[in-house]
Amino acid sequence: MKIAKFGGTSMASAEQIKKAFEIVISDPARRLVVVSAPGKRYDNDIKVTDLLIRCAEKCLSDGEAKDELNAVVSRYAEIARDFNLSGDIVQVIEADLRKRVSSDKTDRAKFMDLLKAAGEDNCAKLAAECLRSMGVKAHYVNPGDAGLFLSDEFGNARVLPQSYNNLKASLNMDGIMIFPGFFGYSATGEVVTFPRGGSDITGSILAAAVDAEMYENFTDVDSVFSANPNIIPSPKPISILTYREMRELSYAGFSVLHEETLEPVYHKGIPVCIKNTNNPSAPGTMIVSERENKNGPVVGIAGDKGFCSIYLSKYMMNREIGFGRKMLQILEDEGIAYEHIPSGIDNVSVVIRERQLGGETEERVINRIKSELKVDDIFVVRKLAMVMMVGEGMKNTIGIAARAGAALARAGVNLEMINQGSSEVSMMFGVKEEKVNEAVKALYNEFF
Amino acid sequence: MKIAKFGGTSMASAEQIKKAFEIVISDPARRLVVVSAPGKRYDNDIKVTDLLIRCAEKCLSDGEAKDELNAVVSRYAEIARDFNLSGDIVQVIEADLRKRVSSDKTDRAKFMDLLKAAGEDNCAKLAAECLRSMGVKAHYVNPGDAGLFLSDEFGNARVLPQSYNNLKASLNMDGIMIFPGFFGYSATGEVVTFPRGGSDITGSILAAAVDAEMYENFTDVDSVFSANPNIIPSPKPISILTYREMRELSYAGFSVLHEETLEPVYHKGIPVCIKNTNNPSAPGTMIVSERENKNGPVVGIAGDKGFCSIYLSKYMMNREIGFGRKMLQILEDEGIAYEHIPSGIDNVSVVIRERQLGGETEERVINRIKSELKVDDIFVVRKLAMVMMVGEGMKNTIGIAARAGAALARAGVNLEMINQGSSEVSMMFGVKEEKVNEAVKALYNEFF
Repeated sequence: MKIAKFGGTSMASAEQIKKAFEIVISDPARRLVVVSAPGKRYDNDIKVTDLLIRCAEKCLSDGEAKDELNAVVSRYAEIARDFNLSGDIVQVIEADLRKRVSSDKTDRAKFMDLLKAAGEDNCAKLAAECLRSMGVKAHYVNPGDAGLFLSDEFGNARVLPQSYNNLKASLNMDGIMIFPGFFGYSATGEVVTFPRGGSDITGSILAAAVDAEMYENFTDVDSVFSANPNIIPSPKPISILTYREMRELSYAGFSVLHEETLEPVYHKGIPVCIKNTNNPSAPGTMIVSERENKNGPVVGIAGDKGFCSIYLSKYMMNREIGFGRKMLQILEDEGIAYEHIPSGIDNVSVVIRERQLGGETEERVINRIKSELKVDDIFVVRKLAMVMMVGEGMKNTIGIAARAGAALARAGVNLEMINQGSSEVSMMFGVKEEKVNEAVKALYNEFF
Repeated sequence: MKIAKFGGTSMASAEQIKKAFEIVISDPARRLVVVSAPGKRYDNDIKVTDLLIRCAEKCLSDGEAKDELNAVVSRYAEIARDFNLSGDIVQVIEADLRKRVSSDKTDRAKFMDLLKAAGEDNCAKLAAECLRSMGVKAHYVNPGDAGLFLSDEFGNARVLPQSYNNLKASLNMDGIMIFPGFFGYSATGEVVTFPRGGSDITGSILAAAVDAEMYENFTDVDSVFSANPNIIPSPKPISILTYREMRELSYAGFSVLHEETLEPVYHKGIPVCIKNTNNPSAPGTMIVSERENKNGPVVGIAGDKGFCSIYLSKYMMNREIGFGRKMLQILEDEGIAYEHIPSGIDNVSVVIRERQLGGETEERVINRIKSELKVDDIFVVRKLAMVMMVGEGMKNTIGIAARAGAALARAGVNLEMINQGSSEVSMMFGVKEEKVNEAVKALYNEFF
């Protein structure tokens, strides 16, 4: 079985949905389809998920949101009309939305998740009707009925381990199953969502649960590119890369796949294929466990802003057993995840996402480090960007760091930080935020 | 007041001691002298400290060590004879040694420290006699009487904070005070020693205690060199460097000063001068808080062998708050100090001194990491060397990493690891042990 996941632009209109289902029908292995909520039809359009967020916010402030609700319904109604469906399915969707809107609002996060999930859920119901209207046997599958249970972290849920067996047992219907992405149910029966973009995660979980032969992720680009096309005009497409490479690139700003997407398929070694709904004959990008290295040591270069680093120095730090552990304990107590810890002998920098270090948190962290670790010096360096050069082939190539460093120096980019672990699947350069595009350009021109 | 510390070669013979004291007498500010035990007189000679260790080991195995004891006594007797001193001082020294040898042997470490400390202690007594014979007022100072109290870690003691006030109050005698290096007393009155080479530490503690204007460290080289003369023929001498630079170079294999030496003087900003007893007119090397940067970005290049790294990988490691802290806790529980933690997104390497990771310890650490952190992969990379490029000027110079990387690549040295913190007082390259000399040569030729 193959899992085919279609993103918001593939569900945006009847025309797009037809393209998607022609792709599904063309391969009998494509029996389980995951759908996002309808996305943008044109540049300034508003995604259904964003309409639902507006609707939820209006309800929470004013108690009702007639116009906002109608805007959502009309998106589904337009698709139903263009597919020449009867009005019944639109009534079902409208009734579902009205029920959600009138539900309990005491827990804002819970209410928000219930509304946000409506986009995918109703899109799946509608899509099943559309497919049936094309003469294909199709079922809408409710994630709760299928047993997709998540942790009760609204807006940031994680899959619970029992879901895999539940899904394996239930996803065995005849015909094509249409599964809504992005949400599942908590143990107490509440609707909970993954982080934004989480329909990719749903597809990956289903692929792992049914031991799929492939997880196909249909989006609106022909492939993953070796650099951001907004920085590098016509960057080289990537035909194949490993999970580890994709993961590092996603982390550092490649937005093709949500960062957490690959975990379920990675553990099962299920290949992922990224393809374009609008150009299905393009080969796309394959993501696999291992690949032959034929096209140079580097597969991709990514840059991401919004980092800062806490610099600490203390004489004889490296002789003080427990120093690093105590420092990380302070961050953990504040719920702060760190990214990297480059170090000298008597100094260390902790690189973290800047959004994690706000006013009071920052003050508490700095004060605790000062008083508990008795450092000689501490300060925060702001507005850093991380540039990540990724490629499995780097570890066997002498002189990569030199070429990268020379290219950056020629472009006048000073290196605030270099971090290369013993894996060498990636090399990280810390630069000032305003230099990040120059840095990506310099490295791209050197290695591609 | 200046503190003048003389190393073992400066105390090896009457001729050397005369040179040392001529230096002392030539500057009236040199009122506090720290001495090591007599060192080698010629290449294949045995240092008194090593004779004492043999003596202690023989006593512990056989209950007595006549020949070994006589070998120690004869070193002092030779110096006394060449200074034309009466036999009294030799009898005092011999009686002291006999008393130590016949003391309680149930605690081996305690007995060993008592014997090792005899080298410096008796050298100080003898040196005071020598100085008096030159017509100069001189006192032997016993570290216990002067209040130098240390933690009761035999062979690896640290100074206790109250020592500084004790020493300040007691080190005010007329004339020249001769203080034995390397040892002090525990709170319960036992003799305890610093790590080997710890006479440098004694000098630094005394300098901080009396707020000395300078700490002069007399050894047998004209200066600190920018690289190891056994690797680079006639390396450039360093005229001035900062505490931080010296500390990083000592750490990475520069053996001129014991690694812990600078801590007490660093906190007080007392300048250190490294000079040659055999060539006192050479300017030597000054170690200070801050220096002007006139001679290029790099002051020194050091390479040190004997490292290994534990490589861990786990999918989504960077999202797991507490992962790093738990990993460091496991090392801390085993008393292992780590050196660096370079990291990718989902992998991290912990670089440690190889001697810390023996058979059973290694097995326990690896098993705990596997079971408690549930990593996907873990292995140990052995026989690594760290090459450290040090210089305060590096942080303001674009392209240092590139030049270093290019030089290493041209020399065929593959980089296992790069670690550059935000301080940039140093840049660290991990290479295979067999490549360390090539790496130092390549960097020296590039930057000097």
